[in-house]
Amino acid sequence: MLPREILYILLPDYAEHEPAFLAAAVNCGPQAKKLSPRYVNRVVAPSPEPVISCGGFRTLPDYTFDTMPADYAALILIGGFGWQTDAAKRVVPLVSEALEKGRIVGAICNAASFLACHGFLNQAKHTGNGVEQLKLWGGSRYTNEQGYVNLQAVRDGNLVTANGTGYLEFARELLLLLQEDTPEHIDLFYRINKDGIAPSC
Amino acid sequence: MLPREILYILLPDYAEHEPAFLAAAVNCGPQAKKLSPRYVNRVVAPSPEPVISCGGFRTLPDYTFDTMPADYAALILIGGFGWQTDAAKRVVPLVSEALEKGRIVGAICNAASFLACHGFLNQAKHTGNGVEQLKLWGGSRYTNEQGYVNLQAVRDGNLVTANGTGYLEFARELLLLLQEDTPEHIDLFYRINKDGIAPSC
Repeated sequence: MLPREILYILLPDYAEHEPAFLAAAVNCGPQAKKLSPRYVNRVVAPSPEPVISCGGFRTLPDYTFDTMPADYAALILIGGFGWQTDAAKRVVPLVSEALEKGRIVGAICNAASFLACHGFLNQAKHTGNGVEQLKLWGGSRYTNEQGYVNLQAVRDGNLVTANGTGYLEFARELLLLLQEDTPEHIDLFYRINKDGIAPSC
Repeated sequence: MLPREILYILLPDYAEHEPAFLAAAVNCGPQAKKLSPRYVNRVVAPSPEPVISCGGFRTLPDYTFDTMPADYAALILIGGFGWQTDAAKRVVPLVSEALEKGRIVGAICNAASFLACHGFLNQAKHTGNGVEQLKLWGGSRYTNEQGYVNLQAVRDGNLVTANGTGYLEFARELLLLLQEDTPEHIDLFYRINKDGIAPSC
């Protein structure tokens, strides 16, 4: 069976640390690439040109908003400084459709604020870069302050949200939801990257 | 004054979480790109074609080994599964020259093992993916087991080494060495990403 696609939405000035752990865990074990990965990572961007990260790395998209497949395993919205631009508006219908179809959706950092801004967090428990930022971005379209949970990442049904420092918890929750590996292996992956294998200083 | 270049050596199957925090800290603050960054990040790869990360993201190099500048602020060797290939051999003279000229050199994860393999860790305190891996890769060319330090990242002079889970400590030590910001700001950047801004679960 062909591996199913995980789609990462990258806008200009995306935060490269936010997809890194999830993407690597999907595709690799500790020593090598997986021989039979269950999923394959694909980059989706506004145009076919390279999309530039916060750090200035240039990533080539696999798809644009116009060429991405209708069927996929998960839609992952990566944070950064692009979520208040015109390009972000084109993501609104993609999220609407994904939520309507009950697909797995992840949004981290400013991408969670973008969800608030378009009313997508009003039916679910969620987190983000602090409830004040969600209220600021969402204005009257964010009506679910009581659904805000102060955790690094929050899963409610098929929706995972996280703050920008919750990159590891975001990966953990999505890997569990995708049943990418056993919970024990996913926890080990999380712990080793969270705690490190040696003292910090 | 033009910002000086930080060169990131990416080989095929590079670990994208390892350059992510350093590169973003160099180029961005919490809310936006820096207006006057002190450094600029540049990707160096074996060829001009996109270099593919562990997660399968395709990054366009800014330079190849043949076109990279002779002068730069730091040479950063990023880990992954490419450090025992022919492409890695072409990095040996680049490291030799950098160390001879006293440049800042960083090596994380398997890139630290690569340094052991070519005798580059014999004059300095260092760390890596465990001393056993350095001995395995280095064989008789690694003669400095007593210089191994069990920390997430180790700085000795202008050389910084780290294990693969030491991505944040690697960034911290290099930012301090580069005097990219004040020690207080660098520590804040480190702590917020290490500890998170909310409970983990």
